[in-house]
Amino acid sequence: MVTINCDMGEGFSLYRCGDDAGIMPHIHIANVACGFHASDPSIMRATVKLAGEHGVAVGAHPSFPDLQGFGRREMKMGRDELSACIVYQVGALKAFLDEAGMKLNHIKPHGALYGAATRHEDVAEAIADAAEIFGVPLLGMAGTLQETVYTRRAIPFVAEYYADLDYDAEGRLIITREHEAKDAAEAARRAVRVMNEGLATNIEGGDLPMRADTVCIHSDTPGADQLARAVHSALRPWFG
Amino acid sequence: MVTINCDMGEGFSLYRCGDDAGIMPHIHIANVACGFHASDPSIMRATVKLAGEHGVAVGAHPSFPDLQGFGRREMKMGRDELSACIVYQVGALKAFLDEAGMKLNHIKPHGALYGAATRHEDVAEAIADAAEIFGVPLLGMAGTLQETVYTRRAIPFVAEYYADLDYDAEGRLIITREHEAKDAAEAARRAVRVMNEGLATNIEGGDLPMRADTVCIHSDTPGADQLARAVHSALRPWFG
Amino acid sequence: MVTINCDMGEGFSLYRCGDDAGIMPHIHIANVACGFHASDPSIMRATVKLAGEHGVAVGAHPSFPDLQGFGRREMKMGRDELSACIVYQVGALKAFLDEAGMKLNHIKPHGALYGAATRHEDVAEAIADAAEIFGVPLLGMAGTLQETVYTRRAIPFVAEYYADLDYDAEGRLIITREHEAKDAAEAARRAVRVMNEGLATNIEGGDLPMRADTVCIHSDTPGADQLARAVHSALRPWFG
Amino acid sequence: MVTINCDMGEGFSLYRCGDDAGIMPHIHIANVACGFHASDPSIMRATVKLAGEHGVAVGAHPSFPDLQGFGRREMKMGRDELSACIVYQVGALKAFLDEAGMKLNHIKPHGALYGAATRHEDVAEAIADAAEIFGVPLLGMAGTLQETVYTRRAIPFVAEYYADLDYDAEGRLIITREHEAKDAAEAARRAVRVMNEGLATNIEGGDLPMRADTVCIHSDTPGADQLARAVHSALRPWFG
Repeated sequence: MVTINCDMGEGFSLYRCGDDAGIMPHIHIANVACGFHASDPSIMRATVKLAGEHGVAVGAHPSFPDLQGFGRREMKMGRDELSACIVYQVGALKAFLDEAGMKLNHIKPHGALYGAATRHEDVAEAIADAAEIFGVPLLGMAGTLQETVYTRRAIPFVAEYYADLDYDAEGRLIITREHEAKDAAEAARRAVRVMNEGLATNIEGGDLPMRADTVCIHSDTPGADQLARAVHSALRPWFG
Repeated sequence: MVTINCDMGEGFSLYRCGDDAGIMPHIHIANVACGFHASDPSIMRATVKLAGEHGVAVGAHPSFPDLQGFGRREMKMGRDELSACIVYQVGALKAFLDEAGMKLNHIKPHGALYGAATRHEDVAEAIADAAEIFGVPLLGMAGTLQETVYTRRAIPFVAEYYADLDYDAEGRLIITREHEAKDAAEAARRAVRVMNEGLATNIEGGDLPMRADTVCIHSDTPGADQLARAVHSALRPWFG
Repeated sequence: MVTINCDMGEGFSLYRCGDDAGIMPHIHIANVACGFHASDPSIMRATVKLAGEHGVAVGAHPSFPDLQGFGRREMKMGRDELSACIVYQVGALKAFLDEAGMKLNHIKPHGALYGAATRHEDVAEAIADAAEIFGVPLLGMAGTLQETVYTRRAIPFVAEYYADLDYDAEGRLIITREHEAKDAAEAARRAVRVMNEGLATNIEGGDLPMRADTVCIHSDTPGADQLARAVHSALRPWFG
Repeated sequence: MVTINCDMGEGFSLYRCGDDAGIMPHIHIANVACGFHASDPSIMRATVKLAGEHGVAVGAHPSFPDLQGFGRREMKMGRDELSACIVYQVGALKAFLDEAGMKLNHIKPHGALYGAATRHEDVAEAIADAAEIFGVPLLGMAGTLQETVYTRRAIPFVAEYYADLDYDAEGRLIITREHEAKDAAEAARRAVRVMNEGLATNIEGGDLPMRADTVCIHSDTPGADQLARAVHSALRPWFG
């Protein structure tokens, strides 16, 4: 069993980011930006509505407060102020779900916050603090502090495989400020391999043990809609 | 029957604004800032907690997005983008209420948003749009478009009398960027007169018909805690 | 004598807005966003550098503080706080000009600030206050309070004709939140008519007296680079 | 020869921070906040004016972009985006100096940016990049990467001793989110010892070699005006 998830609603003001309407038909769950790395109240409302029309479940995609850096710059925040920062964002998103008669499905931290939670226990705890309040699962990276901390606190953990990012030899995600285009067919083949063999291919061509409850595609990766379509098509046998 | 309400949690970052802890014992309901004119996630969490400890009911106090202007500068926003802006803020606050096991009691718009809703139908409608989503009453100024619009839409309307602001001869609030100190005893006497006679005293000393379901004190008025104590003491016979 | 000016550098964070590199070869002066309606320090630096490489003169394009609204929502600000807000932005831009060894050429207010300055004397005065500090001309709309106020204060006034916006029958610009595509050839013909006959064509097809020291094109108008090329080509006889 | 410097103009919106008017008579140079950790255009204008009235020289006090955290949370920014961020802030401040007919005296990074520059070469280089553009000295901490990098690039370096903060046994500043009150007489005695013996007293009572071209006091330290008065009085023999 696997789902496809995608970071959505990452425009801001007049700016658009990613072809949300083109991607929505190919995914199961959307991680919707909450205004701290991207998005604003109008875009959040529209994104939730779009997801609802496609029967896509919506989770919150909170970030460090860093609109200019698109949430890709790590900030040193204490556990309390960070969990408050996350609760604020998730609550704001949940209001638009209430408006649309939808439920909050999960939380998935964005960018540098996601990365920090793989390495800093306090960051993972702060994210877990927020998840407990809302009673929802957390998406994250297996084998990191994310899994350790969330699981210890009995918060349902949903392991992700990134179809549009590269992993280094140690299994760490290689995150660039702007995502690069990927070959859709190759990405789909690799995703299938993860499901079949439990192995991903790292940037050096080597094998990387990989568990995937959900496969992630970023809406701001060039060609994301084609990538989503290809991965969706290839993973269909594993959908629930 | 009357209550005392107060705008609370209006600090930001390291800045403090008003003696919230000193005022809390004297009020029934707190209008808590949501981060758009004042406050931030950490302060919102602390303010909700403080209110809960005093058994004070908490409502949201949303604003135009204008942190530098403390929400006291009117902005021209369309109904849709404005209601989204309000829903975002209320949702963010509600998350801290969820965390504290408390309920959202009401919504009261702040500053220029409050003022604009007395004059612009679209603004009042946008506020009503948000209130409907959360199913809570709106605090506002009787005899203005606020009352007209909210009542037409069957949203419970709670009429306010301002104990620490002046009214002009036409009954309009005189709002200054920074609130001025008021004589606590005189403010209490005037509040009692509103309850007994349905009359307030305008800035020229004349009579002003006034209905008050709730009496408002601003936490950033100098001496607000003494004012709250005096008004609380004087209005005790009318508490439910 | 006429120049072509264009609002440039209106991206933000990872977002891009307009094909600045494609437009730069066709214009004489760039109005560069200063971070309050669009842009950020990194984009400002890059935009100034790009302009310098094309020999394009750079002016500041300050706005109301309204990043989410792209500066297209009017705000009520007093003259003092507004002029401070403008001085801040212009100073920030000027620093990147200093870095590039270039001079500040002019100031042109953006969006709702531009519009407000045609109608509210205080707004026009605040803009003039800033221009005086930097000793530069102001771009604006002839026949409005902009011209009246700037000229009264002996600030050089550069009258604009908008090649990519429509004028209503009373000569007011019709400003939409997102600009619409224009026929490049038709826009060029109309610009030539302004130069030859001193007449623009309003949205109803009627004549509108028009004076143009400079012709404006917006970088976020779809097809702006083709529009700029066509207008540039057509107006060549009038370049200095 | 020594001067007294103080971080000034650190209010925001309606919030005030520190008794700037009370401190100004006792200092030589003011580090004025630029809107990224505190302050806004109106407060910057007022602070520059106040400094000018007291004959106090003004430098820029730029920060990471972190208004909610008062610039005390470290952010990971690349050298280019960080130097742009600093240039933006310094330029904005310089505009108010231009308005007041004053010169930019120096740059002193704030809070977490200051701290990061003692440990990360890229951060120190980014600060130096900005200082070179404006041709001004940098205030900083002797014996750290700040001094190494600035000196290597031949940027005049002004070494600071902090009269209102504690140093640990290794000579590192102990920075708390909110500054604590200090005994003014004791702080003055310690400052004199630095001048006489080149030794500061660390938090364990031990000696710490210390060089001081300037002595810093924070305006948001409780009792900062009395502290400034005492230190000023004690250091008078060493003023130029």
